[in-house]
Amino acid sequence: MTVLEKKPTDRLQDSLAQVQRLIERHHLVEELVHRQDMPKHGLVEELVHKQNVNELHHKLDQLHPADIAYILESLPLDDRLLVWDMVKSERDGEILLEVSDAVRETLIESMDAHELVAAAEQLDADELADLAPDLPRQVVYEVMGGLDDEEREQLQSALSFEEGQVGALMDFELVKIRADVSCEVVLRYLRRFDELPDHTDKIFVIDDDDILKGVLSIRKLLVSDPDADVSEVMATDVVTFHPADDAEDAALAFERYDLITAPVVDEKGVLIGRLTVDEMVDVIREESESEVLSLAGLREEEDLFAPVIDSVKNRWAWLAVNLCTAFVASRVIGVFEGAIQHLVALAALMPIVAGIGGNSGNQTITMIVRALAMGQMQPNQAWMLWRKELGVSVINGVVWGGVIGIVAWWLYDSFSLGLVMTAAMTLNLILAATMGVLVPTLMQKMGRDPALGSSVLITAFTDSGGFFIFLGLASVFLM
Amino acid sequence: MTVLEKKPTDRLQDSLAQVQRLIERHHLVEELVHRQDMPKHGLVEELVHKQNVNELHHKLDQLHPADIAYILESLPLDDRLLVWDMVKSERDGEILLEVSDAVRETLIESMDAHELVAAAEQLDADELADLAPDLPRQVVYEVMGGLDDEEREQLQSALSFEEGQVGALMDFELVKIRADVSCEVVLRYLRRFDELPDHTDKIFVIDDDDILKGVLSIRKLLVSDPDADVSEVMATDVVTFHPADDAEDAALAFERYDLITAPVVDEKGVLIGRLTVDEMVDVIREESESEVLSLAGLREEEDLFAPVIDSVKNRWAWLAVNLCTAFVASRVIGVFEGAIQHLVALAALMPIVAGIGGNSGNQTITMIVRALAMGQMQPNQAWMLWRKELGVSVINGVVWGGVIGIVAWWLYDSFSLGLVMTAAMTLNLILAATMGVLVPTLMQKMGRDPALGSSVLITAFTDSGGFFIFLGLASVFLM
Repeated sequence: MTVLEKKPTDRLQDSLAQVQRLIERHHLVEELVHRQDMPKHGLVEELVHKQNVNELHHKLDQLHPADIAYILESLPLDDRLLVWDMVKSERDGEILLEVSDAVRETLIESMDAHELVAAAEQLDADELADLAPDLPRQVVYEVMGGLDDEEREQLQSALSFEEGQVGALMDFELVKIRADVSCEVVLRYLRRFDELPDHTDKIFVIDDDDILKGVLSIRKLLVSDPDADVSEVMATDVVTFHPADDAEDAALAFERYDLITAPVVDEKGVLIGRLTVDEMVDVIREESESEVLSLAGLREEEDLFAPVIDSVKNRWAWLAVNLCTAFVASRVIGVFEGAIQHLVALAALMPIVAGIGGNSGNQTITMIVRALAMGQMQPNQAWMLWRKELGVSVINGVVWGGVIGIVAWWLYDSFSLGLVMTAAMTLNLILAATMGVLVPTLMQKMGRDPALGSSVLITAFTDSGGFFIFLGLASVFLM
Repeated sequence: MTVLEKKPTDRLQDSLAQVQRLIERHHLVEELVHRQDMPKHGLVEELVHKQNVNELHHKLDQLHPADIAYILESLPLDDRLLVWDMVKSERDGEILLEVSDAVRETLIESMDAHELVAAAEQLDADELADLAPDLPRQVVYEVMGGLDDEEREQLQSALSFEEGQVGALMDFELVKIRADVSCEVVLRYLRRFDELPDHTDKIFVIDDDDILKGVLSIRKLLVSDPDADVSEVMATDVVTFHPADDAEDAALAFERYDLITAPVVDEKGVLIGRLTVDEMVDVIREESESEVLSLAGLREEEDLFAPVIDSVKNRWAWLAVNLCTAFVASRVIGVFEGAIQHLVALAALMPIVAGIGGNSGNQTITMIVRALAMGQMQPNQAWMLWRKELGVSVINGVVWGGVIGIVAWWLYDSFSLGLVMTAAMTLNLILAATMGVLVPTLMQKMGRDPALGSSVLITAFTDSGGFFIFLGLASVFLM
């Protein structure tokens, strides 16, 4: 009885550790073989080596493709390719689907065209479509040549949609029935399958023209009178999607209505595919991932063990943007060099004004970006939210600005410097609140992703703005 | 035929707009009624008012609880409570489960104990457990008194686990069978249900002592020979969870193995509940939410329309931390006031060094935090990753530091100032890389959440460190 194994994450960690141990031994034995050229010793090592490789093979064969993907992602490049070579080639396709984009690239690079074709041929049309953009064009053509007409059409349809669209995520494994048969007939029909498609929680009811008329939930089918007609027990109020719909919207609908599968129909209502919850979970995960990554100034997910140069490429774009905004802020300070020369305390105090503004602006913008993404805020509510944020920033400005103003007064023994500090903090927080509402709302209105670069942008405003406000006030009132 | 409606998000937006229109009309009519006291006019307005309220009631009755929750979240406080009053009281319970924590608080505040008890009584034990922490204690006791023994035990069990544990998320709606019956018998048994539990994709197979022996997938049941015994068709290699398991680990397992439901067993193997994918989707969503929020320095999710004072409370903690770190950075600059007095260009250039360090450090720390959270990095790999990050930062330091060094040379006509700038940039990037690897790895080793405060912490190091390195180098080489 294997039900009561350790919890899944521990089991996975154990597998990883085991594979790592085997790889280590592998390296050790190889080193030994290389070191001593005596044929007799070599023979023993050869045997150990073989046994070791066998053990590794055996371990890998037992693992779920998702687990192998995890292990591949957790290994440094050399070891990763060693393991990848040992995985049974008929599993290559499904594993390539499971690994992260960055790791997939390294695996595909290590395979020749022949291996890639073999791997791709194991996949369904919709899976192939997921993999196709990463494959050499020649390989895709060759695989396409081997498909039947229906599959080729499905593949082309899936490839015609962009990554963020429902059409690119749907699959074509549908169980379809007519409305005028009895539940008994449906049950008998299902029994003829060797296996029902993954995640089948409902059967799609169509008419003669393939137009979706409703869905029959399996849960309903199981408790219904066998003599009842499908039309009596099916649901007609169905959440459907179009292939051009946004995948993130679809994921929100899955979340909202607790869906497992949902039909995809074209503009005429013809059933063309289905979405499954596992794809939607991936969408949610990727969405949040890309939000965190772009907040941190990373272009895309990174292979932890990628060569240094790949990481540099992934990160340079945001660093360059940041460099420009930092340079602008620096020039703003440059304008006030005279004032700083005159009162050097300004140089020490100005980063506080800018820093608090940046933190507060990031709080506001994050909240607004989230609300826009979840559809909880309409752009016409910006005005109202702005007034609220103003309130928050005035309170924070007076309280925290007051605290830091008193500290500045005490440190530099100048009441007016403390007052300027408090005023500058308050004004910069007001600027932060204003930009925090304005920037994402405008981005959204212009049809851009409001999350992208929001953090860098807001910091640019609060840095340059903070320096300008503080040094400007100081020039006017303290000089 | 309602299958071919508009896409779900549009439909939802329409509903929201409709409700908003009705509320506006409601306000308008109320104003009219208040303004004119002529009884005749009043009667007409009264009628319009009544019709309006009826329409709103009708609209709300048609909506899915999740949609009502969405509408409540999207409305300012006054309108929200107006709508909440109009929702049929027998739906209060399910809607309270769907709204965000922040909005739930406002709704519960508006209800008296009697209404709360009525709402809570509609819920299952596991749902009640979700709601209980937000309810007044008196209400929970009263509801508990009305439960039967089994439900009370389930509620107490669910309440005994913390929010992030499997035990707090599992439900108790199980379909259990014995292994020694035929599939035919199972089908007949299922037909006796009025309705199968939500998401039922498998039936749990137990022995006389309630010990889990395997699971029978419905997909398998439907294609199996009716005469076959359950023991022949059930799967015994099952992913199981324990109630004390971490919910995020469970969510990862659901994602990895594409699960819909999974059994929860105690340490003896006795089946005590099940997890469903919809709960896991919520866990994934909340996990990413809290990551983004804590990166931005927000303590928790915020009700967009909450009073100003609530927002201030939510944000002050991180602002205070930020204020302290900014103050430290300011004191570092204070130490070098002499150098700045002597060469005021330093004041203008120093924020560039600090800013780029902060951006780069955030890139590193985000990557490491993610890798730790997804289990792709073991703390013992920190050394290796540190060397890699060092490589990245040296390249970035030389390239971008070189660019900005040349600009500084050109702007201030001082080659040595440019050189100091480049050196300081490189050193600060190395500091950023080191701290970016060290901080989350240490946090993880100490059993803390590596994401929490990572951004504020790394910025503290790169700000103070950047100022110190740049001004220190300048003092030594330029004075």
